[in-house]
Amino acid sequence: MTPAVSYQPDPDADPAGLTYTFGGVEPVASLAPGSALSTWTFDCFGGAVRSASDVVSEVCDPRYLNPQTGPFFVDGAAPGDTLAVHFVSIEPRQAFGISANIPRFGSLVATPTTAMLNAPLDERTWWYELDLDARLVRYAALDSPFTLELPLDPMHGTVGVAPPLGEARSSLTPGSWGGNMDTPEMRAGVTCYLGVNVEGAMFSLGDGHARQGEGETCGVAVETAMDTVVIVDVVKGVYTDWPRVESDTHLISTGSTKPLEDAFRIAHADMTGWVGAELGLSPLDAYQLVTQVVESPVANVVDTVYTMTAKVAKRYLPGVAAYAGIHGRLRAQAAALTSPVEPLGTTERA
Amino acid sequence: MTPAVSYQPDPDADPAGLTYTFGGVEPVASLAPGSALSTWTFDCFGGAVRSASDVVSEVCDPRYLNPQTGPFFVDGAAPGDTLAVHFVSIEPRQAFGISANIPRFGSLVATPTTAMLNAPLDERTWWYELDLDARLVRYAALDSPFTLELPLDPMHGTVGVAPPLGEARSSLTPGSWGGNMDTPEMRAGVTCYLGVNVEGAMFSLGDGHARQGEGETCGVAVETAMDTVVIVDVVKGVYTDWPRVESDTHLISTGSTKPLEDAFRIAHADMTGWVGAELGLSPLDAYQLVTQVVESPVANVVDTVYTMTAKVAKRYLPGVAAYAGIHGRLRAQAAALTSPVEPLGTTERA
Amino acid sequence: MTPAVSYQPDPDADPAGLTYTFGGVEPVASLAPGSALSTWTFDCFGGAVRSASDVVSEVCDPRYLNPQTGPFFVDGAAPGDTLAVHFVSIEPRQAFGISANIPRFGSLVATPTTAMLNAPLDERTWWYELDLDARLVRYAALDSPFTLELPLDPMHGTVGVAPPLGEARSSLTPGSWGGNMDTPEMRAGVTCYLGVNVEGAMFSLGDGHARQGEGETCGVAVETAMDTVVIVDVVKGVYTDWPRVESDTHLISTGSTKPLEDAFRIAHADMTGWVGAELGLSPLDAYQLVTQVVESPVANVVDTVYTMTAKVAKRYLPGVAAYAGIHGRLRAQAAALTSPVEPLGTTERA
Amino acid sequence: MTPAVSYQPDPDADPAGLTYTFGGVEPVASLAPGSALSTWTFDCFGGAVRSASDVVSEVCDPRYLNPQTGPFFVDGAAPGDTLAVHFVSIEPRQAFGISANIPRFGSLVATPTTAMLNAPLDERTWWYELDLDARLVRYAALDSPFTLELPLDPMHGTVGVAPPLGEARSSLTPGSWGGNMDTPEMRAGVTCYLGVNVEGAMFSLGDGHARQGEGETCGVAVETAMDTVVIVDVVKGVYTDWPRVESDTHLISTGSTKPLEDAFRIAHADMTGWVGAELGLSPLDAYQLVTQVVESPVANVVDTVYTMTAKVAKRYLPGVAAYAGIHGRLRAQAAALTSPVEPLGTTERA
Repeated sequence: MTPAVSYQPDPDADPAGLTYTFGGVEPVASLAPGSALSTWTFDCFGGAVRSASDVVSEVCDPRYLNPQTGPFFVDGAAPGDTLAVHFVSIEPRQAFGISANIPRFGSLVATPTTAMLNAPLDERTWWYELDLDARLVRYAALDSPFTLELPLDPMHGTVGVAPPLGEARSSLTPGSWGGNMDTPEMRAGVTCYLGVNVEGAMFSLGDGHARQGEGETCGVAVETAMDTVVIVDVVKGVYTDWPRVESDTHLISTGSTKPLEDAFRIAHADMTGWVGAELGLSPLDAYQLVTQVVESPVANVVDTVYTMTAKVAKRYLPGVAAYAGIHGRLRAQAAALTSPVEPLGTTERA
Repeated sequence: MTPAVSYQPDPDADPAGLTYTFGGVEPVASLAPGSALSTWTFDCFGGAVRSASDVVSEVCDPRYLNPQTGPFFVDGAAPGDTLAVHFVSIEPRQAFGISANIPRFGSLVATPTTAMLNAPLDERTWWYELDLDARLVRYAALDSPFTLELPLDPMHGTVGVAPPLGEARSSLTPGSWGGNMDTPEMRAGVTCYLGVNVEGAMFSLGDGHARQGEGETCGVAVETAMDTVVIVDVVKGVYTDWPRVESDTHLISTGSTKPLEDAFRIAHADMTGWVGAELGLSPLDAYQLVTQVVESPVANVVDTVYTMTAKVAKRYLPGVAAYAGIHGRLRAQAAALTSPVEPLGTTERA
Repeated sequence: MTPAVSYQPDPDADPAGLTYTFGGVEPVASLAPGSALSTWTFDCFGGAVRSASDVVSEVCDPRYLNPQTGPFFVDGAAPGDTLAVHFVSIEPRQAFGISANIPRFGSLVATPTTAMLNAPLDERTWWYELDLDARLVRYAALDSPFTLELPLDPMHGTVGVAPPLGEARSSLTPGSWGGNMDTPEMRAGVTCYLGVNVEGAMFSLGDGHARQGEGETCGVAVETAMDTVVIVDVVKGVYTDWPRVESDTHLISTGSTKPLEDAFRIAHADMTGWVGAELGLSPLDAYQLVTQVVESPVANVVDTVYTMTAKVAKRYLPGVAAYAGIHGRLRAQAAALTSPVEPLGTTERA
Repeated sequence: MTPAVSYQPDPDADPAGLTYTFGGVEPVASLAPGSALSTWTFDCFGGAVRSASDVVSEVCDPRYLNPQTGPFFVDGAAPGDTLAVHFVSIEPRQAFGISANIPRFGSLVATPTTAMLNAPLDERTWWYELDLDARLVRYAALDSPFTLELPLDPMHGTVGVAPPLGEARSSLTPGSWGGNMDTPEMRAGVTCYLGVNVEGAMFSLGDGHARQGEGETCGVAVETAMDTVVIVDVVKGVYTDWPRVESDTHLISTGSTKPLEDAFRIAHADMTGWVGAELGLSPLDAYQLVTQVVESPVANVVDTVYTMTAKVAKRYLPGVAAYAGIHGRLRAQAAALTSPVEPLGTTERA
């Protein structure tokens, strides 16, 4: 049986249970390996954008963007292990999502680190209706009457653990510890593998998207608060250099850096090693096979560094059982979660 | 009725009908707009790799890699127009394909332009059996007994026209004129749009792949000679800045440069403009919609510059009729091609 | 009169007075604005490389590289201010310096973030004799009898304050807070300007180099421990976005990110703004003048992100008085420092 | 005695003796190895900007920017050799220079290949008075009364030969063949080494600058027509992969590509090899020495690809005699050029 606990951050309490960094903060609660956690996450604006007439630069404090729920101390997770985070469910907590054009942010504009003299674009806010029954996201243009229904595809833009080397990293940044990777692959049903750098791993998550395109071109997906259930487990004695994701159909490696070809190199070198290990291939044979079968969608080209993914379909990986088959076990465990999760008493907080 | 002509390059003739640049060469034949062309293309090694024991650096002259069939002078195509190349069929001409690990070439090794002091990897050749009936490509590892069947998915790595500014560009390079883009999207059934820079457009194609992954990680796909039929047409008075591809289901923009984020920017800025024009959206509304619906697969990270694609599904583009609906007309024209194409007399050559 | 204090880190004490991050650590001492600080810094190996036969990867713990002396709490420095750090003297503390070739580190090899499959280069250690009287650094080749005398040019590779957004950043990394910029400009006689992000600024320094070339090509300069005197002051109400350096002859802007052209953009956009403000020019006139007079030496292409500098000679900046002329005042104050600095009692530590 | 010839392009003649590509054009004249050539070059606008009120985008045809004088066929230069171009003198042909801010061009703005949605900056023209006696360039701000005298430092932004692989490359582009490198090092007194790719080398030059800063930040230096004398010679049997420059005091390697760190890698890997060869050092010893002594100024971050230089002072290279000491011989030969050069008859044109 899966121990099931609930943790609800409370913005009005102290501590609120929210954090703006990976690393450098005390845990809000501890979890036993193999337990299910039911929680919720704010949207990336911390709930400050309340209508289509709210403008991000006016209603948000730049020091408090992208709040994460956590961190959670996972019992027994130690440096050198891998944390497995299985997403049981990710559901919008509200019937709307928000996107925006934010000055000096996005892939097709000058930014503080791609510094230019051009004037910024106008700031705008798009309000999306979410139809949770029909599983639809409703786009409405601001400057013309055009509207469009898009599939709801909820995911977390940000999930991670404390970084190595004593660093604390802004929740706006992705890296080897996970963080703000903004890949649409982080949806319900997948398992995310993260290398553990500190005792307890210190896992957090946030930045729910009702959907996003690949690359997150303008920098802002359909942002919304999420009710999320995960099962968290520990793979002892195996470290994961860069975040990996496993779905029922694919293995996915990630890499986050600039320039984007270096993010590609990280993800595809990682996948070459992963495929080689799973199939018992020499490095050159693995490199060759990856060349012919990999899919290479961009995750984001908008955050402080960029994220690439390398995906290989399991149909090309006969007998694959990554991390000793933990994804399959967590899938089964998730399916067996039938009773409501029990609230985690505040005394459980570390 | 579609005028149908055949042009067969002949390596033993002079001229052979092969070229190693886009631009700077005389046409091998002329084509009327709207006509179907049946031709064939060498593999990227010019046929010099004849067995698994052949090593590229020994059997190939680096000055004569990636031969293109052409160029073809398209009557009436003038600077400022767009050439539409519809791929009717692309079929391997032989029952094998070749891949290789070539020193100082590929995304995960030092190259002449990502210059490093590390020693190169070993050179190797992989021989793929192509089962044209079962539509399979058979991978066999060199260092272990592992084998795997992959779907046959024939495509052209290289297609393009003469560049602007009087340039002649190696067939190893992609750019605004097309060239060595190495995107797996260039398969039968799609229409490729290329801006015309010189009288007659001077269209060539080559570099057939039995299949490739995205990114073409090691730099060499499953290379093979191809029998190919295209219909070539001209859209007058409309220029296309960067190559675009239209399939029955998607619009695709490309961008080719380094670093890879700049290739992303070109492709996604182009797609933002294209979507805006098709749907009558303002630039910011188009940027927003692209953000939520685009797919962003890498094409190659191995050629002299890299190629990104930006794809938007037509189901998100109600009423789309790019280039006045030419793709649909060419699809219909291709379907009506029933009789064998007639050979183009050598006297037709320019 | 300049208040003068001394702070000597003690590796055997607890706390040792050393730190491996900017941000996230308690101050070791507090300083009054305008006071001189006499201190010393370890070499980047923390003193663990003790002979030419020591190999970095064997004698160093990767978690404890590049120790910084500090952080120092500067009284009255508040977010939005600028910290001015004037380097009075930087002198090698020992008669040797060390360089090394470290696997997967350096500009001309594959690294963890420019991930490749090539094998790493051999690991080697070079031992440099420092002749402090003759002001020379003696290079000796390892594989041949060649030797060469180079000018001694002591500097600090790393100087910075706590970053914004609650981050703690490894001392191996440069950024807007300073850190591991590795520019040879950071020598005695210059003033470094750093934007203050937290109360007290939390200033640290380390990574002394007896000399380095621009770019720090292999990643390791002539590393040595340093005895250093600085005068620290605060410019109230003026923030500095990216570290700047002022010498008697030049203004210097820095930018640290990847790719290197983005670091160039940061530094040169900053210099365009700086020159415009100093000379009362419009942005376009400043951009034009910078174009014709700037020097653009690379600082490093080896750290986790790269650093560029943009330098403009003061002879092109008539009447320049950056930050109300503080550099000149600190120069005069430094010249007046005649008596030995007084030790700072441990009770002074915050 | 040095054979001395004169070649004067004539814009009103046909052929005019101007070219817009390296490669793909017929030679305008042939030169014997070791002969001096006296010629002149247009400014990069082809002389079309005639006053401060002329605007580049209105008076220039984008197909005819950066005209080069040439190409010259150098007798006996064959693929695999190196062409040595010694700059005897480079003198402005007129008493003015021109700079401009051109939309979508420059390092601090969005460009066609760093594609963004931001609006371009305003277009402006700066008119510089050149005082050839006082050796001064007079800057005058457009939006305020500020003026400044800068040193005259004449140089050629563009010099090169025909590229390999049958390519013809726009004179706007730098690469392994030279071209639009825009390094201020290309001044009178230096020798430029270029690898020969085709019979006769096909040498051209142009793009005179009265001066420029490093990086050529806004993309336009102080552009002017030049009267130039070079001595052209051939080093048989030695190829030069990337352009090199030798002055009386330095060896300089170049690299041209994007991203800028890859240009850095090319230049510094080349310099590592060059220093190793000159001093008889092992590759690791050479890498180490370059690390401590190299200077790394940016050449340009504005052209279609970017150019970096790596400089090592000859005082660190005891006994250096690059290319068998040809620079010293050409220096002496230049000094002996006393009589006016004789005009090259038009019958000499190839």
